[in-house]
Amino acid sequence: MAKIKWKGGALLSPLPAVLVSCGNGEIDNVFTVAWTGIVCTKPPMLSISVRKERFSYDLIDKSGEFCVNLTPESLVRAVDYCGVRSGRDTDKFKEMKLTKTESFELSCPSIAECPITLECKVNRKIELGSHDMFIADIVAVGADEELIDEKGRLMLEKARLLSYSHGDYFSLGKKIGDFGFSVRKKKRNTKKR
Amino acid sequence: MAKIKWKGGALLSPLPAVLVSCGNGEIDNVFTVAWTGIVCTKPPMLSISVRKERFSYDLIDKSGEFCVNLTPESLVRAVDYCGVRSGRDTDKFKEMKLTKTESFELSCPSIAECPITLECKVNRKIELGSHDMFIADIVAVGADEELIDEKGRLMLEKARLLSYSHGDYFSLGKKIGDFGFSVRKKKRNTKKR
Repeated sequence: MAKIKWKGGALLSPLPAVLVSCGNGEIDNVFTVAWTGIVCTKPPMLSISVRKERFSYDLIDKSGEFCVNLTPESLVRAVDYCGVRSGRDTDKFKEMKLTKTESFELSCPSIAECPITLECKVNRKIELGSHDMFIADIVAVGADEELIDEKGRLMLEKARLLSYSHGDYFSLGKKIGDFGFSVRKKKRNTKKR
Repeated sequence: MAKIKWKGGALLSPLPAVLVSCGNGEIDNVFTVAWTGIVCTKPPMLSISVRKERFSYDLIDKSGEFCVNLTPESLVRAVDYCGVRSGRDTDKFKEMKLTKTESFELSCPSIAECPITLECKVNRKIELGSHDMFIADIVAVGADEELIDEKGRLMLEKARLLSYSHGDYFSLGKKIGDFGFSVRKKKRNTKKR
């Protein structure tokens, strides 16, 4: 296909759009972050990038803690709202009926309605430009017990997570493959002709 | 919902699964990366995290360049294959019929079959553990001209990008919202009763 050249832009896609909860129990907040990604497997680490002007920036910078709450499509309105409104003048938990619950390892709240919570401790901060990047260790995971089968396997597909792509939110569609399928030996075809 | 506690793990989801092309024209390679994310809007920057053992690690480390090629669901087999096979012993471009094309700004190839290419120059490298993170400036974007409408808007939804979630590949499903929809004033309802 023929491509035209544009100047550089933040066009990576599709992305997660997670609800990040933070604060110390007295002042807390929740906001939406799409500028996030896994940055290391062992130890497990992720990054979130946050504008200095954000109300949550100082909460995270001071406490060194935050929770990344994965977002099901049923919460799409909250995901959008928490990315647009500021915690300076809005109690977004209350407005969006998001239930604060205690984290396992941190003093900041996690969100009950989100099926997976990644509890994160800031490892370092890197100033980049419009955004500073917080690189964090994932110190614990909270997983909805209804997503775990009898073998202890996480059935994450049942969580119906949403995805963010170029300004739009999408549900995940059909499964089109699984890791390693391209090189796996096919099982003997037992289908009758 | 009741959550059980697990130890920390790289459970962010859903993620992009991009084809990263790299090399200097003599030796080049393509490999799949899900540990990627936007880390800054201005200047536009992204990160990819790569194991030191990877064949592409040295190619990127030496050249300071790579292309992030966004992946449509039609390439799911190549996406999987390029994440499993090594460029040390396989010409993955050839095996997967991926066409190398010249980048606009870099000496490494981009992939013709991918609708968007983000051309990246390494800004810094951070050692984290199993993976090193390359933070890079997105210096140019190549965009399939068929995705651009007459107003110059990118119709990325037409690219049918794939998503990676907990070991499975998914197509994007239906659109469930767009940025700002939760606070936008509704247009007057002109629907007839």
